[in-house]
Amino acid sequence: MLYEHLGINDAGHLTLGGADTVALAEKYGTPLYLLDEDRVRENCRTYIRAMKEHFGGESGPLLASKALSFKGIYRIAAEEGMRTDLVSIGEMMTAHAAGFPLSRAYFHGNNKTDKDIETAIRYGVGTFVVDNLEELEALDRIAGELGVTQDILLRLSPGIDPHTLAKIATGSVDSKFGSAIETGQAEEITLRALSLSSVRLLGFHCHVGSQIFETEPFTDAADIMLGFIACMRDRHGFTASVLNLGGGFGVRYVESDPVIDYCENIRLVAAHVKARCAEYGLPMPEILMEPGRSIVADAGVTLYTVGTVKTITGYKSYVSIDGGMPDNPRYALYGSRYTVCLASRMHAERDFVATLAGRCCESGDLIGEDMVMARPVRGEILAVLTTGAYNFSMASNYNRIPRPPLVLVSHGTDRIGVRGERYEDLYRLDE
Amino acid sequence: MLYEHLGINDAGHLTLGGADTVALAEKYGTPLYLLDEDRVRENCRTYIRAMKEHFGGESGPLLASKALSFKGIYRIAAEEGMRTDLVSIGEMMTAHAAGFPLSRAYFHGNNKTDKDIETAIRYGVGTFVVDNLEELEALDRIAGELGVTQDILLRLSPGIDPHTLAKIATGSVDSKFGSAIETGQAEEITLRALSLSSVRLLGFHCHVGSQIFETEPFTDAADIMLGFIACMRDRHGFTASVLNLGGGFGVRYVESDPVIDYCENIRLVAAHVKARCAEYGLPMPEILMEPGRSIVADAGVTLYTVGTVKTITGYKSYVSIDGGMPDNPRYALYGSRYTVCLASRMHAERDFVATLAGRCCESGDLIGEDMVMARPVRGEILAVLTTGAYNFSMASNYNRIPRPPLVLVSHGTDRIGVRGERYEDLYRLDE
Repeated sequence: MLYEHLGINDAGHLTLGGADTVALAEKYGTPLYLLDEDRVRENCRTYIRAMKEHFGGESGPLLASKALSFKGIYRIAAEEGMRTDLVSIGEMMTAHAAGFPLSRAYFHGNNKTDKDIETAIRYGVGTFVVDNLEELEALDRIAGELGVTQDILLRLSPGIDPHTLAKIATGSVDSKFGSAIETGQAEEITLRALSLSSVRLLGFHCHVGSQIFETEPFTDAADIMLGFIACMRDRHGFTASVLNLGGGFGVRYVESDPVIDYCENIRLVAAHVKARCAEYGLPMPEILMEPGRSIVADAGVTLYTVGTVKTITGYKSYVSIDGGMPDNPRYALYGSRYTVCLASRMHAERDFVATLAGRCCESGDLIGEDMVMARPVRGEILAVLTTGAYNFSMASNYNRIPRPPLVLVSHGTDRIGVRGERYEDLYRLDE
Repeated sequence: MLYEHLGINDAGHLTLGGADTVALAEKYGTPLYLLDEDRVRENCRTYIRAMKEHFGGESGPLLASKALSFKGIYRIAAEEGMRTDLVSIGEMMTAHAAGFPLSRAYFHGNNKTDKDIETAIRYGVGTFVVDNLEELEALDRIAGELGVTQDILLRLSPGIDPHTLAKIATGSVDSKFGSAIETGQAEEITLRALSLSSVRLLGFHCHVGSQIFETEPFTDAADIMLGFIACMRDRHGFTASVLNLGGGFGVRYVESDPVIDYCENIRLVAAHVKARCAEYGLPMPEILMEPGRSIVADAGVTLYTVGTVKTITGYKSYVSIDGGMPDNPRYALYGSRYTVCLASRMHAERDFVATLAGRCCESGDLIGEDMVMARPVRGEILAVLTTGAYNFSMASNYNRIPRPPLVLVSHGTDRIGVRGERYEDLYRLDE
């Protein structure tokens, strides 16, 4: 098994957090998003403990909303003492509706509109992560009009290419995000921020990419960011008190992905940061991290009912499911790899290789190719693992397919987190 | 201008169907999907006229729902005498809610569930396009239970690779769709269909791919399909009365794409079909086509407000907009190309090259790279052209961004087709 919170019960069914997935498919229908609440909480605690132990002070993790945003996840995050990032007013309103304290929220994004800025200030979002000079000017102006001094971090581009997929690499100089250190634009925006009266600069943010399995990109980023912090102190007398190192720790999607010890990774990054701070004579900043994927991905499983199983003689086999790119567009977008299990017969031999095809009228609607599984028959339940991140949050109604419900499981019990859409929901805004 | 229904008014603003796009952005906000209803009707009429003239009889086009599905489009289609295809019960319910006669609908899809089949029969969908043997057996069983003899076409895979993008090529033998002629599976399913008592086989369907600019893939497909029809007549005494050649005619997204004369293409395909029928001694079948993209794509324009304009010294420039992959995922999915205009200053010189970046917290959230435009400033209105197909229908709430409204314009007037989502809509199904 890919993870220890997955199991097989006496009926030979896949279990998630102690709950029988086949029984859940029967109860709620398919497709069905499942999320193991206990696993999410455990992941939160791993990060909180490790960051407290190794970085100390107020350091801690932020939930990355874009990976998974619905009211229930903010309640869990609040209970676990997580902070959160937000990238839109929609995420902010969801967090707010769930009772999440927005003072503990960080507002991200490369293109905040004036209206976004005003709304976020009015709702009391604690910290803005300012992407660029235009946004900084707009924020200072609007905060001034509202009589607020807004805490901010500046998003910088450290010029690191973590050798991950281009679409998810964000730390390189030519990324759409942030102000580049290399070009002098980071220093320029820092000076401007220090000169403005309605913003208070706390420090800096960077994010090098996603699905990274090594620690070097993070220690490299910390090197560059601490070098910049020291430089700003030396040149301009400003010492940052906060350094947000972003997210990006990888998640295990398939057996060949390495098992990652997040705690050990944090220890290594912390040792590196401490050494650099000592070298530069800097006080240890409050360190923030944004482990979106690695908080929620492995807690999620998606269940599907098998439809047609088709072998094209001499070519290949297809297993069709009752979902696909509308509920999980990651293979279509990135060619992402997944592990699939025949949830209804977990002891059956995995001797069938097939393309797992979605039900959309589109050739690219696949969950994966050359996937190894037990050969299923129409009506059985398939489980795609590690779907807690970037599945529900990226879902569409392509082909006018309703979005599935999301069910939380905890210690063998289940409850609805997000109700599934009905057909009427699809056209309720149509005139 | 890419198309003649786009224009520039005295204020120097982009017009669509005679309406001032900047005024519409002001009235409805941005992002905003616009659809020129008159252009959609004109496209419908072009296909209907050309197919009637060149194929004769009951031949005609089907709206391809997956390209754009909302109640208003089915009303327009019904008024213009179009038939429609459907790939899901969601599309069917939308068409039904709009009053579209489902007897004129064709139900597609590689994986119809038993529940889908039952629902579509109960609602009186005229014709099923049966993908595979398992579906055929299920359909015959369910139709029998309901006391219905269901008209069907069989989707066959002609084994054609139209040299288009793999993700949108669907006619090759190893596609997830249909039963392959080459492997003998097409003959097998034909014989099985003829032996069943609750289905009535009318003919065959094929679809070779999308965004095809030549006529050869269509004439090649017609060759293969008519050869198969003749073979079934000779071997088994069954003469198909319907041949659905699918969709796939290309659409002009950028100036370098060829201008396509759909009428002339249809004439060429029809001449080819007639010659083959004469050769095989076949009566001319009723020919159907499914021109989804080319009915609606060029009628659509998406308006955005410009946010940050950022030049990374020595690297590249970004123009950020208040939408992106949530409302148009086609660049992220396929690397699709688009034409962009500065709607508020159409006479300004197009001397700026930039990446058009969406507002999502994702590096791949781009509408295009190296796009040529007049250099915009924060607050101006940009228009992305040819967005009528596969934009609204593929839209998501990624980053919890509400989906924009869709406004229909006609002879300079405007009305809402689909209301925009509000923030509350984003979490209304969250428990």
